[in-house]
Amino acid sequence: MNLEDIFLASTHGKEPKQLYQPIEYVIMQPGKRVRPRLVQLSAELFDGDPTCALYIGAAFEMLHNFTLIHDDIMDKAPIRRGKETVYKKWNSNIAILSGDALANMALQQILNADMECEARFKVIDIFIKTSLEVCEGQQYDLNFETSDHVTIEEYLKMIRLKTAVMLAGCLKAGAILSGASAEDQETIYKFGIDLGIAFQLKDDLLDLYADHEVFGKKKGMDIQDNKKTYLYLQALEDASPEQHKELKTLFASDSGNFNEKLSRVMAIYESLRIKEKIEAVADGYIENALSTLEAINLPSSKKENLKEMTLQLCKRTK
Amino acid sequence: MNLEDIFLASTHGKEPKQLYQPIEYVIMQPGKRVRPRLVQLSAELFDGDPTCALYIGAAFEMLHNFTLIHDDIMDKAPIRRGKETVYKKWNSNIAILSGDALANMALQQILNADMECEARFKVIDIFIKTSLEVCEGQQYDLNFETSDHVTIEEYLKMIRLKTAVMLAGCLKAGAILSGASAEDQETIYKFGIDLGIAFQLKDDLLDLYADHEVFGKKKGMDIQDNKKTYLYLQALEDASPEQHKELKTLFASDSGNFNEKLSRVMAIYESLRIKEKIEAVADGYIENALSTLEAINLPSSKKENLKEMTLQLCKRTK
Repeated sequence: MNLEDIFLASTHGKEPKQLYQPIEYVIMQPGKRVRPRLVQLSAELFDGDPTCALYIGAAFEMLHNFTLIHDDIMDKAPIRRGKETVYKKWNSNIAILSGDALANMALQQILNADMECEARFKVIDIFIKTSLEVCEGQQYDLNFETSDHVTIEEYLKMIRLKTAVMLAGCLKAGAILSGASAEDQETIYKFGIDLGIAFQLKDDLLDLYADHEVFGKKKGMDIQDNKKTYLYLQALEDASPEQHKELKTLFASDSGNFNEKLSRVMAIYESLRIKEKIEAVADGYIENALSTLEAINLPSSKKENLKEMTLQLCKRTK
Repeated sequence: MNLEDIFLASTHGKEPKQLYQPIEYVIMQPGKRVRPRLVQLSAELFDGDPTCALYIGAAFEMLHNFTLIHDDIMDKAPIRRGKETVYKKWNSNIAILSGDALANMALQQILNADMECEARFKVIDIFIKTSLEVCEGQQYDLNFETSDHVTIEEYLKMIRLKTAVMLAGCLKAGAILSGASAEDQETIYKFGIDLGIAFQLKDDLLDLYADHEVFGKKKGMDIQDNKKTYLYLQALEDASPEQHKELKTLFASDSGNFNEKLSRVMAIYESLRIKEKIEAVADGYIENALSTLEAINLPSSKKENLKEMTLQLCKRTK
């Protein structure tokens, strides 16, 4: 039994096929499966049941994919993981509805997992809290598109909600299903928040500095969408008055030549060493995460896999 | 404590306001509150805790409103309950996201209710099953828009999923929270399915034959959207070859003069006595529902409120 078996069991051959085929298309795409791996690693750390962790991991992976399906409608994103998005391949109605269905199918996996009633209740609680916070994060992200005054602090709050809480939620759920103490649940959650913020900063960097064949998205989509990422906000802070004015102008335009816009923005970022600065910020979060992990009173050897995963996510190319 | 207190506690003053204001706008609109009333009546029948029933009722009402927010995007519906829809008043991104958030807030109400762990698990189970089936029903409904061969049987399956399972789910949840037997849970669910189908047939009739000031929707929206309702499908079955051809032509057109289309369709329905026929079908479901209710081994006096509600829903004008 693996993740894909669980996914197929809940989609394959189901009717109406117009609803279930887009779901299968999305969740069966090869992905990093970061969220299930985090549930599994947390359950390993706290000696939880691996089969139970597999179902909870499936739930979070489905939740994550549900958010991608809906986000892609809102962002009008044509490509994800190198393939057409549901919204583009089918249409936005199908994408709304299959996303809605997938969110429910995610919860069903928590009901399918074999666990004590109270632990299940707590997993559902963190799952729903996470899911609601991700909506809040996405709303802040949408707000930022039309806002002229986004601070770095606001940006960090947004990515904490949109990205970090889900990684943290996976780790906490892994701890809950393993019967870890309330204190350990909170510690691993805190670890996940820092990891998640670093993960998102890395994602922001990859938008510009990845091998885009490997990354699976078009280069500079954040710039095309005028997303106020940490890169942009840091650049605004460090820019000369001329650069500041140019950045503002570039990020206010909707049309024009995209390649020209991209190369102008990248030139400013390079002159300000934005890549190096954001990498340093991300490294700071990773260090925090790792020292939080140290605080858990378990042998260091048990934490190796989680540490390795943390560093992998930091050095990833896609 | 009433429903509105629960709603406001989960929306009022919450940030980001762009997310929570549309939710508050929708759930605070005066409505029939059919679903909470069904949970309450079922809990009364089986001697359940009214406060617990209130939370579970709030959960279903929020779920219902979530489906309306998303359906209105898909149907491009400008007006609901006499007011602008979220999609129209704000935009479709806000409607997608606030709908997603509302679905999670609904589940949180089930976690807020004071109940035994196993009963809560069963309520969540029926709640999620219901929610997924509603998605399936909506997908069938969308499929029918472009399908040329919808049978009455397929239509009934669609409204069972889209409408009836939620009413039935409310009743079953009321039975679960009251500790009713598994048999009684299934009986009240079956009662709810028949009630729900009758309720939807009544809704189809109201689209044409309501006082539309009271009903709160524009007259003939189903006809404008070329919805294959029971009225249309029955008319096709009973039509003369000329009427059959005209109906097919009228329901294939997207543009043209709406008032002319509406009056042509209504003339055909009148000549075929469609209103009376569908009323008779709905009455049949109500009779079935009431005789199912009889089968529950409780004094007849305890069932009076549920019977009265059933008849109210049948004779409603909005």
